[in-house]
Amino acid sequence: MEKLIAGVDVGGTTIKIALFPTEGEPVCKFEIKTRVREEKDFLWKDIRDGLYEKLDALGIERSALAAVGMGIPGPITKAGYLSSLVNLGGFGDCYPAKDLERLMGIPCIAGNDANVAAMGEFAYGAAKAYDSVLFFTLGTGVGGGVIVNGELVSGEHGLGGELGHLVVNPDETDSCNCGNRGCLEQYCSATGIVRMAKKFLLETEIPSVLRDGRDISCRVVCEAAENHDPVGEKVVDLFGKYMGLICAHMVLTLDPEAIILGGGVSRSGKLLTDPIEKYMAEYSHIAMHKPPVLIATLGNDAGVYGAAALARKLI
Amino acid sequence: MEKLIAGVDVGGTTIKIALFPTEGEPVCKFEIKTRVREEKDFLWKDIRDGLYEKLDALGIERSALAAVGMGIPGPITKAGYLSSLVNLGGFGDCYPAKDLERLMGIPCIAGNDANVAAMGEFAYGAAKAYDSVLFFTLGTGVGGGVIVNGELVSGEHGLGGELGHLVVNPDETDSCNCGNRGCLEQYCSATGIVRMAKKFLLETEIPSVLRDGRDISCRVVCEAAENHDPVGEKVVDLFGKYMGLICAHMVLTLDPEAIILGGGVSRSGKLLTDPIEKYMAEYSHIAMHKPPVLIATLGNDAGVYGAAALARKLI
Repeated sequence: MEKLIAGVDVGGTTIKIALFPTEGEPVCKFEIKTRVREEKDFLWKDIRDGLYEKLDALGIERSALAAVGMGIPGPITKAGYLSSLVNLGGFGDCYPAKDLERLMGIPCIAGNDANVAAMGEFAYGAAKAYDSVLFFTLGTGVGGGVIVNGELVSGEHGLGGELGHLVVNPDETDSCNCGNRGCLEQYCSATGIVRMAKKFLLETEIPSVLRDGRDISCRVVCEAAENHDPVGEKVVDLFGKYMGLICAHMVLTLDPEAIILGGGVSRSGKLLTDPIEKYMAEYSHIAMHKPPVLIATLGNDAGVYGAAALARKLI
Repeated sequence: MEKLIAGVDVGGTTIKIALFPTEGEPVCKFEIKTRVREEKDFLWKDIRDGLYEKLDALGIERSALAAVGMGIPGPITKAGYLSSLVNLGGFGDCYPAKDLERLMGIPCIAGNDANVAAMGEFAYGAAKAYDSVLFFTLGTGVGGGVIVNGELVSGEHGLGGELGHLVVNPDETDSCNCGNRGCLEQYCSATGIVRMAKKFLLETEIPSVLRDGRDISCRVVCEAAENHDPVGEKVVDLFGKYMGLICAHMVLTLDPEAIILGGGVSRSGKLLTDPIEKYMAEYSHIAMHKPPVLIATLGNDAGVYGAAALARKLI
């Protein structure tokens, strides 16, 4: 009987799951609904039941499942402790991997979702050719992951790769969701890009197609920039400046081989990687070699791929 | 015959060497003069000859020496390549460890000097109790070292831990030695502290004991701050702000267990660690736990201790 590995990506509305052979691409992908309950083990039981149901439906013995990896939308300490999932009604105060292990009787591992997605791109996607990479998830917020010499750097308290809350503008007056001011996420997430555009429209008289009354989304701003709209270009330049500054910091701290951008915002490709590379070069003056800034290739599947890559190490 | 390990710290004027048993403190420390010559192997031959001479003088068989570790004042790539040592007349274009290995017939290893000093504090000094630490050498310039899960992060091109050239103030108009503007080194090195003090004295009318015409050194500025001199305090506050910003970035990227300050500037102790901890807390708002900022304990010996720690892994 061939062994299988499960990659699980826990999100606020759905839990994505994929079953992988011990090597290569998944044999099946499916989703279950994320249900929030008071009961301590509800989330792990749902994952276990979802896995068993799928295995049964496929006619695969449950004992074929050798290990489970999970991405969780919150910080997990080195000891495996999760204090709280803000997007899941504060559920937490538990040890996700140990809890699932107890329920399923097989080795389990859990990590922060953005960290795990980085692992996915590292093991299967855009960073497959590298040993040390930096990964940004540019979505509604900004997450990240750091891989050094093939190992995920989760950190002592699970804060490894929390790149969205690096302060890039100490003079900012608007507050970030985290309560601080000037975080990378306030400029370089989808909401950050929209925020910047609205601010420029309000505070300047620069002509712009964005003044025509339409809904301003991240996509609309990027499209405007692609068509050389002055406000769109100003937003993209500031995006590049702050991303480039942080990338330069990482070049001079970790000297990675590549920087990978994932998440919805990264779909704008070269429009965004070009200014990042420009400012990164400027801010890391002494570095003879700068890493390329690449676009992630696994899309929303990065989480399940990364979770499987972590679980693979357990068998 | 008990095996010995040599730790070598190559500086611009002297080469510090210590001989260590396979465990514990060095059995002897000595120095040789750094000589700069055109001949390709001159530096490695001087190190070899210095080691042999000392062993002979101590009546220890040369074959007792099992491995040599070296700290070199320049970046060394993952492949072991050194392009150039600016402070040693541009000597370089070589593979230091391989060159010394060829001359001595025993395993050798080389790393950037600040990285190697970090390894010294990690293996023998202030960071002995930790697995993941960030290390700043605050001297004439600012160097650094990053240790993640017990391993030195030297990076692909040897730029790991080049913390002195992280840009902390993109609006700076003065140039750093590196040619860039706004590097951490321009504020947080001994020369940076003096530069800031002179700038405040020139550009403001804030009363200060530093206006009495004496020579302004880093020590004088720190002493003034300790005595609540307004300009001294302003300098220390800005020092703390920029160091704290970078420390916060590292908390949210690598989540280290401790941050260690070495180099001459670090002798001011709590005067400097207090403002760093204050600003680090402010800039890493989402981090529930902040690492302590500690003072290095090995002083100028950190290099030879770290070089020995690296060499120990070879036997």
